[in-house]
Amino acid sequence: MLEFAVPIAIVAVWVFIGIRILAEYERGVVFRFGRFNGVKPAGLRWIIPGVDRMVRMSLREIVMDVPPQEVITRDNVSVKVNAVLYFRVLHPEKSVIQVENYLYGTSQLAQTTLRSVCGQAELDDLLAEREQINLKLQEIIDDQTEPWGVKVRAVEVKQIDLPHEMQRAMAKQAEAEREKRDKVIHAEGEYQAA
Amino acid sequence: MLEFAVPIAIVAVWVFIGIRILAEYERGVVFRFGRFNGVKPAGLRWIIPGVDRMVRMSLREIVMDVPPQEVITRDNVSVKVNAVLYFRVLHPEKSVIQVENYLYGTSQLAQTTLRSVCGQAELDDLLAEREQINLKLQEIIDDQTEPWGVKVRAVEVKQIDLPHEMQRAMAKQAEAEREKRDKVIHAEGEYQAA
Amino acid sequence: MLEFAVPIAIVAVWVFIGIRILAEYERGVVFRFGRFNGVKPAGLRWIIPGVDRMVRMSLREIVMDVPPQEVITRDNVSVKVNAVLYFRVLHPEKSVIQVENYLYGTSQLAQTTLRSVCGQAELDDLLAEREQINLKLQEIIDDQTEPWGVKVRAVEVKQIDLPHEMQRAMAKQAEAEREKRDKVIHAEGEYQAA
Repeated sequence: MLEFAVPIAIVAVWVFIGIRILAEYERGVVFRFGRFNGVKPAGLRWIIPGVDRMVRMSLREIVMDVPPQEVITRDNVSVKVNAVLYFRVLHPEKSVIQVENYLYGTSQLAQTTLRSVCGQAELDDLLAEREQINLKLQEIIDDQTEPWGVKVRAVEVKQIDLPHEMQRAMAKQAEAEREKRDKVIHAEGEYQAA
Repeated sequence: MLEFAVPIAIVAVWVFIGIRILAEYERGVVFRFGRFNGVKPAGLRWIIPGVDRMVRMSLREIVMDVPPQEVITRDNVSVKVNAVLYFRVLHPEKSVIQVENYLYGTSQLAQTTLRSVCGQAELDDLLAEREQINLKLQEIIDDQTEPWGVKVRAVEVKQIDLPHEMQRAMAKQAEAEREKRDKVIHAEGEYQAA
Repeated sequence: MLEFAVPIAIVAVWVFIGIRILAEYERGVVFRFGRFNGVKPAGLRWIIPGVDRMVRMSLREIVMDVPPQEVITRDNVSVKVNAVLYFRVLHPEKSVIQVENYLYGTSQLAQTTLRSVCGQAELDDLLAEREQINLKLQEIIDDQTEPWGVKVRAVEVKQIDLPHEMQRAMAKQAEAEREKRDKVIHAEGEYQAA
């Protein structure tokens, strides 16, 4: 019996080394002898030690902050815009095989897209039509990250910082609107009273 | 039997030393006695130890940051521009044989091209016609890196930093637009009130 | 048999010592008893040990940074200019025989040429006519490095640092343009309000 003890122990260790536990929200991208072999679902999995290599990918939604970007709108107002990106990995094999670092790539893409979309809009649209800006951002970023297996669910512009002088000028415009109504109401009152 | 043990062990070690595993997204540029012999696809590969040399090249997309470049636009505004480059190696043999360091070369080329393209544009075009600037950058850089086997998929201008005085001057123009509306609203109010 | 073993071993070692492997992109410049004997192509090569000497030369393209040079332009503005040089060795024997260190020589030549070409140009030409400056630099440097067997494919001016006062003066011109537009908008507002 003892003569089998050593081989059995070696096999046991070998089997044990190949054990991997993948969480519910993880997938394992397996490469057999370097070639893409498949994506392992969550649970207790086994890969052949020395032959298989597994890259763990999380499918959980990632909420990523896009750092503030200084943008000059189409009507020449320089604003600071930041945004939040909600995305997840949809095809883990693409995120590993197609791109060096999908997180860095997605972040850079979000930054440039935020700039170009906001730069093409006028300040009033940027402030009033956020829904549309968000939708446009989501569509462009999603489209560009598609080959990396990344699905962008939503993009939301967070903060739009205006320069103080611009804030003043805009406030004046709003006040003028009120004063106009005020004058019209006054005039109406006087007309009716007359 | 024992007399064959040593030679067999030597051959086994020799065979083992030549084993290479190339990941799905990697290619091996093989030189036999120094001469280019071919490009090995992904998977389990064997090269003749002492005779073959293999250089591993990744075909994954690389997202590269082009550091900020101080550029003077055609209309004499000095701005700081940076960009993002999306590229991959298309012909691994060229990236090894034709150039000393394709990553450094691509980075330098992106920097000088960013400068020259932005330097030939006027500030307004730089801010408003990003799409065209990006396309022009992509075309020139892709064309220049072609002999190195590098394919540039896209270039995107990221940040355009204006000097503060210029920002102020541009903001004034935008504020003037608001004040114009302010005046028009006031006049309308008075007209309706009258 | 044994009496031949030692001489055979010595000859074998002697033959073995002379083996050289030249990569696809390398050439071997061979000197026999010190005299130039020829250029060996890539592959497995043999030189006579103790008689031949081989200098390995790479033919791959080199991307070289030319460090910033302080230049005074024809119109007396002192600027800091740097550039990037793309070159390769075309005739390896010349690069070995004609010059002590072709890399150092090329770098120094690029620096002095950068100075003299930029010093003969006016600042505006330097900023606006990059293509022509680049071409002139390439032609001069290529011409000068020709006896060293070096082929300069391209030279690209990278950064042109202006003194702050100059930047300010140039920016003012651009700002004036903006202020003009600001005034026009103001006038329009008053016209419409009237």
